[in-house]
Amino acid sequence: MPQISESTVRRLSHYYRVLEEVEAEGKRLISSHRLAEREGITSAQVRKDLSCFGSFGRRGLGYDVAHLREEIRSILGLGRRWRVAVVGAGNVGAALVAYRGFEKQGFDVVAVFDREPARIGSRLGALDVQDVASLPAVVAREALEIGVIATPVRAAQEVADLLVAAGVRGILNFAPRKLFVPPHVALRTVDTAMEFESLSFALARARPPRRRRARG
Amino acid sequence: MPQISESTVRRLSHYYRVLEEVEAEGKRLISSHRLAEREGITSAQVRKDLSCFGSFGRRGLGYDVAHLREEIRSILGLGRRWRVAVVGAGNVGAALVAYRGFEKQGFDVVAVFDREPARIGSRLGALDVQDVASLPAVVAREALEIGVIATPVRAAQEVADLLVAAGVRGILNFAPRKLFVPPHVALRTVDTAMEFESLSFALARARPPRRRRARG
Repeated sequence: MPQISESTVRRLSHYYRVLEEVEAEGKRLISSHRLAEREGITSAQVRKDLSCFGSFGRRGLGYDVAHLREEIRSILGLGRRWRVAVVGAGNVGAALVAYRGFEKQGFDVVAVFDREPARIGSRLGALDVQDVASLPAVVAREALEIGVIATPVRAAQEVADLLVAAGVRGILNFAPRKLFVPPHVALRTVDTAMEFESLSFALARARPPRRRRARG
Repeated sequence: MPQISESTVRRLSHYYRVLEEVEAEGKRLISSHRLAEREGITSAQVRKDLSCFGSFGRRGLGYDVAHLREEIRSILGLGRRWRVAVVGAGNVGAALVAYRGFEKQGFDVVAVFDREPARIGSRLGALDVQDVASLPAVVAREALEIGVIATPVRAAQEVADLLVAAGVRGILNFAPRKLFVPPHVALRTVDTAMEFESLSFALARARPPRRRRARG
């Protein structure tokens, strides 16, 4: 399989969702044009991406929806389940534990940790919040592979170090700061504050359009 | 001011946070090297970014922390407050309403909407959940500028259309799908599911390293 860029992976993620949607609508075939249209990219790009993985649509017919979905699912590693630890039982942690979508995608939140005595022992969904001091032992015992950092900023790097030392292979960081991890650990960041700032930047520079008033 | 790329804006966001952190530590000067080191980019890139905005460090001394922070704050449009509507009072919406960080950054969540009768009228922090049918009137009356989409995927485009028609200028989307908005509306997406998939892809392709066992 060729080297795959981060942006290709993101497009594959998009195709996967469109395919799920189209499959739910009962459609069996999808054109590269339709896959492209939904994503705001060219259909040539779609065909190029998919041909990298040996999937070729049939001219005039398009791609088999179920087959392509299965293929992308396997490429993205979604054909298997991942065991996840969430560190931080505040708002973000609670939202993640409650989110059903991850389970559907193969991510099982198996343990949740915090260091606040008031939170340790409390319930979050079906899980008991555990003391972060027990994280290394739990990660080893439960064979956890992914750690989610949902702590305040100031604790994030320390928690990342703890997760790495405990042996996780991937980290998803929700704290708004850059973290450092060794090269054998995959790191992705969901930075909501940064998206807000990017939006604020765009709005601050744009000329406000005439405001359309609501009729109500 | 020159045209500024999305990636420059993201680096400015990063610098801003480092400056806040460094200021809180009581430091008055920071080198481009330190700003770079923290972000994993080159110090030449830092100097280039900052010189675009007319900010020049002094050789051997560096940048004045408070001054540079104020400058970036103003460039990012964080010197003013933005009035925000959250649509969707589920887990994500609740986490956003509860998150104190946004207020600090200038984002005031002023209204929250849902279409589930069971949620309408309930309390979310200091706000009453309102019927999404009243959104156009509330956006106009309260002069809301940013809409946050925290609904299930299937409702996301419809809510985006509603927000655009109501007159918001910016949308932050948490639903895992691409949305279409007219060019005068700024759109940013926080796609947690996609980051999980990107992580899963990286892990599925990586050879697992020897597992370090916890000592505990």
